[in-house]
Order: sequence, then C-alpha cells, then structure tokens
Amino acid sequence: MSEQPRVEIYTKEDCPYCDKAKHLFDAKGVEYETYNVTGDDDLFEEMVERANGRKTAPEVFIDDELIGGWDDTSALDETGELDAKLGVESDTEDGEVLEHRKLIIAGTGIAGLTAAIYAGRGDNEPLVIEGDEPGGQLTLTTDVANYPGFPEGISGPELVNNMKEQATQFGAELKNGIIESVDADTKPFRVELTNGDVYTADAVIAASGASARTLGIPGEDELMGYGLSTCATCDGAFFRDEDMLVVGGGDAAMEEATFLTKFADTVYIAHRREEFRAEQYWVNRVHEKVEAGEIEIMKNTEVTELHGSQAEGVDHVTLVRNDKGHPTDRLDDPETEEFEFDVGAVFFAIGHTPNTAYLEGTGVQMDDEGYLRTQGGDGGGQTETDVPGIFGAGDVVDFHYQQAVTAAGMGSKAALDADEYLEDLERAESTSEGEAVAADD
Amino acid sequence: MSEQPRVEIYTKEDCPYCDKAKHLFDAKGVEYETYNVTGDDDLFEEMVERANGRKTAPEVFIDDELIGGWDDTSALDETGELDAKLGVESDTEDGEVLEHRKLIIAGTGIAGLTAAIYAGRGDNEPLVIEGDEPGGQLTLTTDVANYPGFPEGISGPELVNNMKEQATQFGAELKNGIIESVDADTKPFRVELTNGDVYTADAVIAASGASARTLGIPGEDELMGYGLSTCATCDGAFFRDEDMLVVGGGDAAMEEATFLTKFADTVYIAHRREEFRAEQYWVNRVHEKVEAGEIEIMKNTEVTELHGSQAEGVDHVTLVRNDKGHPTDRLDDPETEEFEFDVGAVFFAIGHTPNTAYLEGTGVQMDDEGYLRTQGGDGGGQTETDVPGIFGAGDVVDFHYQQAVTAAGMGSKAALDADEYLEDLERAESTSEGEAVAADD
Repeated sequence: MSEQPRVEIYTKEDCPYCDKAKHLFDAKGVEYETYNVTGDDDLFEEMVERANGRKTAPEVFIDDELIGGWDDTSALDETGELDAKLGVESDTEDGEVLEHRKLIIAGTGIAGLTAAIYAGRGDNEPLVIEGDEPGGQLTLTTDVANYPGFPEGISGPELVNNMKEQATQFGAELKNGIIESVDADTKPFRVELTNGDVYTADAVIAASGASARTLGIPGEDELMGYGLSTCATCDGAFFRDEDMLVVGGGDAAMEEATFLTKFADTVYIAHRREEFRAEQYWVNRVHEKVEAGEIEIMKNTEVTELHGSQAEGVDHVTLVRNDKGHPTDRLDDPETEEFEFDVGAVFFAIGHTPNTAYLEGTGVQMDDEGYLRTQGGDGGGQTETDVPGIFGAGDVVDFHYQQAVTAAGMGSKAALDADEYLEDLERAESTSEGEAVAADD
Repeated sequence: MSEQPRVEIYTKEDCPYCDKAKHLFDAKGVEYETYNVTGDDDLFEEMVERANGRKTAPEVFIDDELIGGWDDTSALDETGELDAKLGVESDTEDGEVLEHRKLIIAGTGIAGLTAAIYAGRGDNEPLVIEGDEPGGQLTLTTDVANYPGFPEGISGPELVNNMKEQATQFGAELKNGIIESVDADTKPFRVELTNGDVYTADAVIAASGASARTLGIPGEDELMGYGLSTCATCDGAFFRDEDMLVVGGGDAAMEEATFLTKFADTVYIAHRREEFRAEQYWVNRVHEKVEAGEIEIMKNTEVTELHGSQAEGVDHVTLVRNDKGHPTDRLDDPETEEFEFDVGAVFFAIGHTPNTAYLEGTGVQMDDEGYLRTQGGDGGGQTETDVPGIFGAGDVVDFHYQQAVTAAGMGSKAALDADEYLEDLERAESTSEGEAVAADD
C-alpha cells in the first residue's frame, strides 16, 4: 500500500486512553487527525453518530471505518490486523530473529520504567516493550499525592513521562509492541511479539502489570463503552448530572467515586463487604462526600445485571444485598434482597488481573490468579522467578501493596538482580571459552 | 540560665554536615551565627586556629568553647550535655511519659520520610524522631540521578526536603532527638530518647538507617577530622591539589573518587579485592577518569595504618598488597607486600553499620551485623519484624540493594503494614471492651 490510509481520532481533554491511542499511532510513525470534543456539542454529536451511539472517547477511524475505542484499537493491534489496515510492514520474515539484546523489559509502567532507568545506567541497554497499556495503570490517575519527592503532587502521566525521559537518557530503548510469548527452553530466550517480531534476550524482566477486572455479568459486554467503564477519569464527564454507580471497596473505588462527584448527581458505591479495604485517607474523603450528600454507600451489595442498550446507554442495574456480606454467595439465603436501581453510568473498580499469560510454559511459577512467584531463585535476589534470567516486578508480582513507589522499588531491584545475573553469565561464558576470568581494567 | 549562650558555626558551601549542625540548633530553637569560610582564606585560617588545627567544617563553638564538628556536636547531644550547655530544658520529669502516639517512626532518611508520608495520609499522625543524621545518607549525595521521576536529577538534600514537606503536609510531626531504647515488654511500647523524653506508642517503624563504617586501624581516631574523613562532599575541597586516597570498592567509593578529582592532584582508590562491587555506571565513570590520568586504582590493596598529626594532617599511609585479594588476611603470605604511600587526605567509603542498638532486648531478631530480620511476622507484611507492632524499613534491613527508591518502597510498605496492625489493634480493643465491632459509617 503506497498511500497511507486516513486515520481520525476523536479525543477529549483529560483522557488518558486518548493519549494512549495517539501514542500508538505515533509509535508506528502513522499520521492522524484529532478532533477534541470537549466543549463542542456538535463535534460530540458527530462522534456519537459515527461511532454508532458510543459515548466514549477516543473513537478511532481508519479510512472512515469505525475501529472503536482504545480497547478495540489495541485488540486489533495485538492480532496484527491494525498494521495490515495501516499498511505497516512487520520488521522481519516469519520467525527470523530481528535482534539479540542483553535485557528485554516487558512493560512501561512505573516498575518497567524504573527497571529501565537502572538497567540503562548499568549499561545493559534494555529494550523495553511497551505492552498494550503504555505507561501502565498510573496514566489513569490524575493526581498522585503519595509518590515521595513531589510535595505538590504530580499527575500520573507526567510522572510516567519523566521516567520515560530518564530511562531513554540512560540508554533504554522503548518500542511499541506486545509480547506474545517467551520461550525459556532455549538460551538466549526467544521473545515473540504479537506483530511477529522476534528477539532473543539473555534476561527478561516481566513488569507487564495488571489489567482492570470485570464481573462477567449479563449486560457487561454489550454496555462496555456505552455507559459501563473501568476508568472514571476517562469517561466520567460524559455522564454529567446523572446518577452513577461505582463498584468496589479499595483505593481505586474510593478515588473514582470522589472524582465522579464533580459530574454526577449522586455517586453510589456498591461494595460487597461491610468495610472498605481502602486506605484511611480515601475512606475519609469518601465520608466527607457522604456528609455533603454527594456520595451514598451501599454496603454488602453486589451488581448482578446491567440493563440498557448501546443506543440509550445504561438504564438501570440489578443489585443484591445481604448484611452478612458477599450477597452473590448467599442468593438462596432468605435474607438476601434483590432490587432494581436506576443509574446512568456504572464504573467497575474491582481490581486487576496480572498480565502474565506470555510466561506460561516457561516454568515461571504463578499463583491461581496468575501473579508471579518471586524470591524463587538461588541467587538471593528478591525479584528472581523460578526460571534463572526471568525477573518479576510491579503489579505482576504484588497484589498487596500496589503503590507507585513500591512498584518503583521493585523495578530497581529487578534491574540490579538482572545485572548480577548478566555479569555472572558473562563471566561463565568467558571462562567456558577457555579464557581466564578477565580483570576489568 | 536566663541568657542564651553565644553559638558560632563555621560553615562552607556544599557541606551537608554544616546543614545538619544548623538544623540541630534550629530544631532546639537556639540562635547562632555562621561564618562561611568558602573563598575566604582569612576566615579559614581563623577557623583552623580556633579549632586547634582541624581543617574540617562545620566547627561549632558555644561561648567560645570549641565543641567540634558534627560528630562531636551530635555525640554531646546524645548524652544531654549539649542541652545543658545551651540551657535547654528537657520536656519531662525523669521517666514521666510526655505523650502517647499511635505510631513513632525512627529516622528521617528516605525510608522514614516515605513511611511518614503514607502514615500521615493514613491518619496515623506519626511522630518522626529525626535521629543523629537528620535526612539520612542521601543528604551527603550531591546528585541523585537514578531516583525515578527526576530526569534532570535532583540533589540529595532537595529530595529529602521535598519529602519532609510532603510528610508534614499529611500530618506527620518531625522532632529532633535520638531514640535510646524501645521497651517492648509493655503495651503500648515505651520509647525513650537520649535527652530523657519518654513517649508511648502502639507501633514503631525502625527506619534509622546505617552509619559510615571505619577500619579501626592505628591513627584513625587521632586523624578523623584532620585529613581523614567519611564524607568526600563535606571535606574534599579542604585538601585542594593534594593526592587523596579513597578506600573502598562500592558505589560510594566510585562516586567519592570521581567527585574528588575536582580538587585532588591524583585520586587513588585502594580496594581489597580484584574487582569492584560498584554498579557498572560508576565503574565506567572511574575508568574514564583513569584514562584521563586523574584516578589510579590500587587493587588487592588495604590500608593498615595512618600517619600524621592533628597539626599537620595526614602525611602518609601504610598499605599492604597481595594479588590474591584481601591482603590483611594474608599478612604471613610471602607474596604480601607492605609499603608506605604519601597522601594528603584519606576518605573511607567502606560501608555502613545499621543503627539498631536501641532495639536490643525487644525480641526483634537481627543478624550478626545488626541488620533487622523482617517478614518474621504472622501478618504477611514484608516489613514485620519478629515483634508484632515493630516494623523495619530502609538500610536497617537492606544491605543488598540500598537505593533511595528501594528504601522509599520499603518505607511505604512499613507504613501500610503498620496501618493494618493498628487497625487490627483498634478492632480487637473495641471488641474486648464488650462493644460490637463498629461499622465505619
């Protein structure tokens, strides 16, 4: 294809997924037009019409064909179909190895970028594969108040961009792409991307994070993007003056509920237990909003169905409540009460699933949810998995603390552990080649 | 004493220990005069004369009496003698409890301050006892390049000050003082400071860091501050155009040697092994300086004696060398060579000892060097010691990674672990008082 297709992206302000979409096309070297719908009702109507009623940004079009939002675009990219539509060639023939690298890092969230900073400084010239959520979870956070060093706070995207700049300064190379599989039966490891590119690497740091979880209830697939969302900062402003429901009881649920009070008539929080898991700070913020009449808390309550249509969005939801908690586990209990509840938008904030499928078959041990087991190695490093040369950092390992600064700490440790591994490897190789162990000056 | 004694402090530019001295008097609310000797030869001569020949800043005087440098001032503060000289009263009668706090944090390095940020946000209103090195090790680092989020780098003192500001914003209270002992046989814990102040606390986070190690060789005590130093950034500029010797092989030794090339004729690095432990980045920087003729490396070499006088400073050192490494372990080996070597200043950069003596007798398990054992608790928190309610973070635990960002990560975890402990405690107390477990809204 000699002529580049026409790419159009409808965006809005404060929309991290819009930035992700633009970044994806930037990384492919593909030009595009953007239309900012914020404050422009006509343009917003145009977007909704062209997107068959979807009221969420971004909306991506290629040669007038609706691709969809970020999830759709990213899914198409994973299969290679996006590149085909764009006329972008894969860099290699089928199966041919494009390049050998000492170290490949999966993910450009806080853990991956910190690993990249340290590995860059350690002269390990890391190749960092961005994954399907470049910048990671933190790009969805408007205000990071507790990352140490920024007394005025810093926005998630700004902190991520600072780290990217720092990593590239030290020699890290960031590359758009998603790792499909790691073959640990060969040395060096063989790392295949979903677009067909193949690399080999002496060591791999898995810092591929975790993705927002959904409930798997009726109505979910149909309404995702049509009133159901996993990102309040992305989509909250589209449902101004409506009642909104946030599902969850952790920090993210509290933060999203607090944020949504800017737009909502009333924000409801449905939480399946009596007490929130969130840190006290967020519980207090929510209680302030409860006192102000902006938030109402529905304890021991779960959503079982979403009702509505793509044309009209969410109309209402079915809820169940039981004061003993976890009502969906007690549907036969006569005290479990089922009722319908009118809301205009629903936001899931119910945790994440680690992105570790590409490590299946490597021998890396995972728990039932797919979180990596670390400290499994002989080297004593805290980020070692059960496979020497594969390290884990950030949300792929940690389902407990999940803070930006704890992810950063782990990223740093993974790079230092990998550096030790790579030095041992080099020394072993030079010895096995019959050379003396070389002094380094 | 109704009239405040006259306090004078000789300072220089880029002198973290000078800042510490000033901060100590600030924290006590005591006024002082400062004389900046940088670029003022007359003032420098005056300082050296009044300080009986010592060529190191700061030099502190109270009513014309020489107190000495930071170490001397700090040592006097520990015994309470400094307060006596200053006419500063202790806040409490002997043994009386001044105040009960939910959480006391020992130390205001990166780990302690990050714990304070998180604990402040968690409404645990932490009291943070600054210890004998306010700001911790990082205040001695001029340029922190690898703390994620600052692509231009940031100075250690600035990063520390940012975190202090952030912690106090969230409700942490910082207090000058040094913890003498923690009594874990009582609940709440009884925390005694060296000045006699006594607090009780439901939980304690030990983030008291580690102190620079010395070799214990002849000449060391006499020459400390007279040509021997553990802080190149503090004292390097005093020995302009002299040959200098840095002892050590880790990051700190490489960084100090590189920094000292600004002032020295030649910088020598004596390292007891064949290869450096430092990260590749620093090894490379040192090798660049070696190629430029500014640094010379003496491998498999150790210092056994320092020669000189307080009046004339360091004159020369005795060194031993053996190509098998660790020459002081091989003094009887005929291949071990002993020789004298002329240098004008010596800098030790040979690691640290954890500041954990105040936890002896609590039941907290430590290794032979005094590093705390964590992950010992039942709660699953990574920072739990063997005593429920006492947590460890930063260099008191970590002798392996020792990075600012890893200390920050641990500080955050310690605060979250402590928060969980405090919540469990509160719930248990309200239950044992016969009340129902209260819902939180």
